[in-house]
Amino acid sequence: MELGDNQYGKAEVRLVRVDRDTDEHRLTDLTVTTTLAGDLAATHLTGDNAGVLPTDSQKNTVYAFARDGIGEIEDFALRLARHFVGTAPSITRARVRVDQHAWERVGGHSFARGAGTRTATAAVSDQGEWVVSGVEDLVLLNTTGSEFHGFHRDEYTTLAETSDRILATAVSARWRHSAPTDWSLSYTAAHAALLGAFASTHSLSLQQTLYAMGEKVIESGSTIDEVRLSLPNKHHFLVDLAPFGLDNPGEVFYAADRPYGLIEGSVRRPGASDPGLAWW
Amino acid sequence: MELGDNQYGKAEVRLVRVDRDTDEHRLTDLTVTTTLAGDLAATHLTGDNAGVLPTDSQKNTVYAFARDGIGEIEDFALRLARHFVGTAPSITRARVRVDQHAWERVGGHSFARGAGTRTATAAVSDQGEWVVSGVEDLVLLNTTGSEFHGFHRDEYTTLAETSDRILATAVSARWRHSAPTDWSLSYTAAHAALLGAFASTHSLSLQQTLYAMGEKVIESGSTIDEVRLSLPNKHHFLVDLAPFGLDNPGEVFYAADRPYGLIEGSVRRPGASDPGLAWW
Amino acid sequence: MELGDNQYGKAEVRLVRVDRDTDEHRLTDLTVTTTLAGDLAATHLTGDNAGVLPTDSQKNTVYAFARDGIGEIEDFALRLARHFVGTAPSITRARVRVDQHAWERVGGHSFARGAGTRTATAAVSDQGEWVVSGVEDLVLLNTTGSEFHGFHRDEYTTLAETSDRILATAVSARWRHSAPTDWSLSYTAAHAALLGAFASTHSLSLQQTLYAMGEKVIESGSTIDEVRLSLPNKHHFLVDLAPFGLDNPGEVFYAADRPYGLIEGSVRRPGASDPGLAWW
Amino acid sequence: MELGDNQYGKAEVRLVRVDRDTDEHRLTDLTVTTTLAGDLAATHLTGDNAGVLPTDSQKNTVYAFARDGIGEIEDFALRLARHFVGTAPSITRARVRVDQHAWERVGGHSFARGAGTRTATAAVSDQGEWVVSGVEDLVLLNTTGSEFHGFHRDEYTTLAETSDRILATAVSARWRHSAPTDWSLSYTAAHAALLGAFASTHSLSLQQTLYAMGEKVIESGSTIDEVRLSLPNKHHFLVDLAPFGLDNPGEVFYAADRPYGLIEGSVRRPGASDPGLAWW
Repeated sequence: MELGDNQYGKAEVRLVRVDRDTDEHRLTDLTVTTTLAGDLAATHLTGDNAGVLPTDSQKNTVYAFARDGIGEIEDFALRLARHFVGTAPSITRARVRVDQHAWERVGGHSFARGAGTRTATAAVSDQGEWVVSGVEDLVLLNTTGSEFHGFHRDEYTTLAETSDRILATAVSARWRHSAPTDWSLSYTAAHAALLGAFASTHSLSLQQTLYAMGEKVIESGSTIDEVRLSLPNKHHFLVDLAPFGLDNPGEVFYAADRPYGLIEGSVRRPGASDPGLAWW
Repeated sequence: MELGDNQYGKAEVRLVRVDRDTDEHRLTDLTVTTTLAGDLAATHLTGDNAGVLPTDSQKNTVYAFARDGIGEIEDFALRLARHFVGTAPSITRARVRVDQHAWERVGGHSFARGAGTRTATAAVSDQGEWVVSGVEDLVLLNTTGSEFHGFHRDEYTTLAETSDRILATAVSARWRHSAPTDWSLSYTAAHAALLGAFASTHSLSLQQTLYAMGEKVIESGSTIDEVRLSLPNKHHFLVDLAPFGLDNPGEVFYAADRPYGLIEGSVRRPGASDPGLAWW
Repeated sequence: MELGDNQYGKAEVRLVRVDRDTDEHRLTDLTVTTTLAGDLAATHLTGDNAGVLPTDSQKNTVYAFARDGIGEIEDFALRLARHFVGTAPSITRARVRVDQHAWERVGGHSFARGAGTRTATAAVSDQGEWVVSGVEDLVLLNTTGSEFHGFHRDEYTTLAETSDRILATAVSARWRHSAPTDWSLSYTAAHAALLGAFASTHSLSLQQTLYAMGEKVIESGSTIDEVRLSLPNKHHFLVDLAPFGLDNPGEVFYAADRPYGLIEGSVRRPGASDPGLAWW
Repeated sequence: MELGDNQYGKAEVRLVRVDRDTDEHRLTDLTVTTTLAGDLAATHLTGDNAGVLPTDSQKNTVYAFARDGIGEIEDFALRLARHFVGTAPSITRARVRVDQHAWERVGGHSFARGAGTRTATAAVSDQGEWVVSGVEDLVLLNTTGSEFHGFHRDEYTTLAETSDRILATAVSARWRHSAPTDWSLSYTAAHAALLGAFASTHSLSLQQTLYAMGEKVIESGSTIDEVRLSLPNKHHFLVDLAPFGLDNPGEVFYAADRPYGLIEGSVRRPGASDPGLAWW
């Protein structure tokens, strides 16, 4: 047999950092996942671990690096990924993903957990460095301005056409950069672009909304070359109240869990840079 | 054998209502659970269902009642509970729980899901009516102002005393009313009291914080006679960075999942009304 | 204000024990939750923790007690609960819940995780000791032998009567003992009684099945005085295939997530002992 | 901007089928996800849905096709994928994933949910057909026969070497076929190979166990050309009982949730066929 692609790392290291150097503390709440690849045949074939940096050491490195401060999560991911490639002899590629959980200040030293997660992934090899920023669990809903009609009908199609429906989704989006930038400003602009495009697009399909969101994210920052979006269609079905002698003019809905539509797509800047290991 | 206490109902009816009568739509996103009790021996003992209002009908009722508008969730719960007791011949007690999910406006017809859930439970019988309001999944964290020392030490105690730790919890709180009130104002005040007490209490134990939160909730509204709180102690452990030649002056923490402390308690107004079925 | 009922403890201590004294190892995989109550006013009112045994110490105790072997989980829960009441000065009541996760042997030292969880809860005070055994996440389904008709119809009832439906549930059951017994044999008998009653009851309502299950559990062991069951009705809806020119004679179903019916009830042995703190 | 790769479909269609043609009913419990791709630019760019087969129709198709019987899940996935490519004008590629949930017979018409999930994915385009079989949530544990030492140590390495540890994982495995086969026999053999390799491999690293599992799966069936495995290292840490005057000779463990190691790799048959769209 032959060993194919392989990688390993530490998943979901929970790291909270408090910055105490100002009167108002700052809170950074992260979940970090490290993934390493390289010349790892020996451990697979014979159990010779000489080339294996333990995942426990990777976890320790995450905590130790946090001692000097986190900074923007893109930078923190880059620092860690460079370190692994630069110091572990058998490791030629490293990917570090950082999820930053939202907190809102409610006092000088007090915080309340918010919704949505900012993400960053850095991939580093001897061929280069790639940074992808993103957002997870951004749940959005439009109460109107969404239609769906003119679709292909086959013998299994019973869906009615509609010119006014609820459109709801949980945005999972990632965008890759062609160059370093001010990560904080870039994220703020991209996040605003996602919200703005969702809210302002009169939608004939969730695909159309997806494309508009991707387009606006790219337009939000000159370093952004490509956006990948995964948008579940969180169906809201109008409840039939006729059996109870009631109409239902778009007011009472059943929010379904499963199944759900799942719309996935990417939008690219013309002449986009080569993605390299960005999406690894 | 004997049949003991029993009840039945429909759990987790997902209801979304859009109010379209103003230029800016309003969105109400609820999960409703109905529970009925009464003379239900026959269905248990012989399968005679003459006294059973199907849970499917309970679900239908939730949707039909939403047609006229939801209003405050305490009122919606009361309307439903009164209906079941008043119309289903065998039903003598009804409890309706309503969870209201948070959404923030991001456009005239656009919303983003927020954090935390407001809850209301109404219990109705021929003996009276009881309303309990509450909040779930309100995750709070103080970066300082929390100590824990002077505790009982036995042969299994290894915990170090601390005069400065992170204190974090996910508040689950419910408070019962002695009389109807302006539910919206009351909730806003109670929610603010929870946040304020958490942020401002210099804490020697999570129990002390719990009591302060309960006290402030009661003080926030004259109709509130009792508060029950369940506060997981979401441990944040200082990471030992000494093996890497680093100190850690309260900056880098590991946020643990399990196990967690669980602190539960209630605070009552002196001379509080009888709870009746409030906590059923 | 007044402090009302309160308690605290350590939740979800994950404990795995390997018994190595025989050629085939034995594996015990538990999640343990301890809960203590007593004279705890000081920590709530002033932050004086002299009466507080830290939840960290409770966790340590769970691990230390496991060194001598677990035995049956009812006994392990009792040993722990007695210890806390017997040694912590301010603690007058202790409850210990133990969940035992299922594993099946696939080799001398190899195991595969199975389905379903056995539970035990011991409550100890100076008034006595109470033991409750149980099962969680036992998911059962009958493909036939279930009817539902003759129910109360009101203006919101649209449900069709049926003489043949799928009946599915996830059994959560707890039964209290009036005296110690052979816990292992008792559990095996009670578990078999649940399965047997579910499979053999021709059901006119899930309530009828619940009662039959409770009855058989009590009959399965002379120490069992009362059973409490919580049975979600996991709805399986016949899919309407008529739009596609197909019939559907009870063969193709949609398994729904939410909402679900929730049927709860208890069955008691006539002359049952006083429950005391069993259900605390 | 440019539209990049895109696809859409219906996720997590919950389908239960009862076969009633024999005295003992048979139960098939599936979760089906369909994914389509092709010429879908119009709906993204202009909202013209003429090329879009609604995800609702895809769901209907799953239920309608189940009317004729499911058969092996690989065949059911193939039937559906071929249908979408063959009948929807704009669709040139279809992928159908089927998860089959485990149930054990406890009576002629009664079943109890088991552990683990069998999976199948079929991908169909005008270039060919690809079938991948697999398993999810197969949780395995060895109480001994696992070592980890001789690994690379850097300045962040504190992990002790061990010659006897618990090895536990939740197997997620997928294997692709070069040709149709008896899917049921093939799955049984591959599943047995996974268990056998896990139990019988004296492991010097989880990577070594992964490779052995992959190797044995390929050897289990002549149609299997490649296996991909994702193995979380579910850490079980020996508890330090020394503070309590106790030793701990490999008996008492803390089962951690997060972080966890994550080992991923593939094993290929020499001269394996081109994977084509198998892993799409």
